[in-house]
Amino acid sequence: MSRIVTVGAAQMGAIQRAHSRREVVSRMVELMREAASHRCDLVVFPELTLTTFFPRWWMESQEEIDSFYEREMPSNETAPLFNESARLGIGFSLGYAELTPEGQRFNTAILVNKSAEIVGKYRKIHLPGHAGHEPWRAFQHLEKRYFEVGDLSWGVWNGLGGPMGMMICNDRRWPESYRVMGLQSVEMILLGYNTPRHNPPAPDHDNQLVMQAGAYQNGTWVVGVAKCGVEEGCEMIGGSSIIAPTGEVIGQALTQEDELVVARCDLDLTKSYKTTIFNFDMHRQPDQYRRIVEQRGAVSPQG
Amino acid sequence: MSRIVTVGAAQMGAIQRAHSRREVVSRMVELMREAASHRCDLVVFPELTLTTFFPRWWMESQEEIDSFYEREMPSNETAPLFNESARLGIGFSLGYAELTPEGQRFNTAILVNKSAEIVGKYRKIHLPGHAGHEPWRAFQHLEKRYFEVGDLSWGVWNGLGGPMGMMICNDRRWPESYRVMGLQSVEMILLGYNTPRHNPPAPDHDNQLVMQAGAYQNGTWVVGVAKCGVEEGCEMIGGSSIIAPTGEVIGQALTQEDELVVARCDLDLTKSYKTTIFNFDMHRQPDQYRRIVEQRGAVSPQG
Repeated sequence: MSRIVTVGAAQMGAIQRAHSRREVVSRMVELMREAASHRCDLVVFPELTLTTFFPRWWMESQEEIDSFYEREMPSNETAPLFNESARLGIGFSLGYAELTPEGQRFNTAILVNKSAEIVGKYRKIHLPGHAGHEPWRAFQHLEKRYFEVGDLSWGVWNGLGGPMGMMICNDRRWPESYRVMGLQSVEMILLGYNTPRHNPPAPDHDNQLVMQAGAYQNGTWVVGVAKCGVEEGCEMIGGSSIIAPTGEVIGQALTQEDELVVARCDLDLTKSYKTTIFNFDMHRQPDQYRRIVEQRGAVSPQG
Repeated sequence: MSRIVTVGAAQMGAIQRAHSRREVVSRMVELMREAASHRCDLVVFPELTLTTFFPRWWMESQEEIDSFYEREMPSNETAPLFNESARLGIGFSLGYAELTPEGQRFNTAILVNKSAEIVGKYRKIHLPGHAGHEPWRAFQHLEKRYFEVGDLSWGVWNGLGGPMGMMICNDRRWPESYRVMGLQSVEMILLGYNTPRHNPPAPDHDNQLVMQAGAYQNGTWVVGVAKCGVEEGCEMIGGSSIIAPTGEVIGQALTQEDELVVARCDLDLTKSYKTTIFNFDMHRQPDQYRRIVEQRGAVSPQG
């Protein structure tokens, strides 16, 4: 038996500050068309796809800050994506900066079905970086300034051939992100990222390790999609990856540019994990995990 | 700055049913002496080191079952390990089947300091396998029959040069195991395992992936030590590994036999992780993780 979902990981190269949403959406529509021509069921775009990665700057002008957020989705500028989705019958996932009618700001991703209807929304929980200006850095990483912590936990939705969830960038380094979706029977996790190659004093990282472990430990596919290249002088990693429930990387981007990676993902490959060694109901012991929710920071050893 | 702990991963080849504890302890003492000769601070032995891996058999005779358990530690048979530890001034960690005075049975590991004093105890939480007889299997995996679920969660103890914790075998596939120790500032996790090469219907597994991810995601060293080789007709994997907080494997066994792997582990390498990207107090969001403790098995997607 097999339940194939064909996915396109739509890696995107650098988006400079001068690039308009119209230009970006035009590149995205092109990638969507390529994905549809390969009979993809859905195409996955990176985190904060519509603009340059603006948290790298300390900005004080509210007008300037606001220019990076979306007040509605779809909007005039993003409508072409939704129109093309409906016309081609292809789903997609998209990351963007969300400004709510109540004035809340989130780093958000949505899941859109083949009829161009938004079926799922996620707001980034693990905001990296810092909230204050730290001029000694080569670039800022001010997600804690420009976004609130997501308030929706991690959801999982049907509607695109199987149960799918979303996480964003830094979430992928935290096993809690995968597990909350694993506990909702997720079979494919879509995740976009913007990751500087070097960001001292944080050490450099293996990008695929955490996605591979998260996939395997929850018996799920993981589709990790980068915005990459040299963006406003900051070099960002590519390496967009499609990872099987075995933990194996079965698709991978090789450039630092707009690049589509296609894979036929059999959701039934998740079953042997979910029903044997990772049968949660049989093997998990939540009473012994309580520190994970009762404690935020690390404490000293007991003895 | 550096705080070096030199560790010896004492992989052990097959231990057959006919092998006495005296024979096994003699092999362990030999490995301990080798480790001391390399100036190891501690030597790590596998899970259930003292006998063959008895959960592979369905046994009904209580006397037969009891023969695999330790009623005291140290005992007459294990005293040579403790004596040699004190004489050489080397710590160790040891896995064994524990039968308590109250009649409880656990799959247990202890941490012993350089004065041969037991400073830490862990009882295995993620018991794999099954509780009933399943004769269609090539071999049984009856940990759920022969042991209770550990009741001590995961502790972390000083006393051997830095904060250390323990997990056992299947625990290494569950990110919760590492995280509970990460939340207690662990800098080195000692873990022994007995893992069949093939155990259908469970799929085959990458042994190092989960240890690498657990190390990296918690900024800790991980020392994974196998009992391996062909034991009573069952082939078990080796691959004992010493893994840095980078997620990199920096020491690895190559045989399926008694083999000592030595590495100088700088506990200060944990710091750049624990103070930047994995500064838990700064970045964790426990309110969004509640499913992890409020739910045991997986539920259906919400939409």
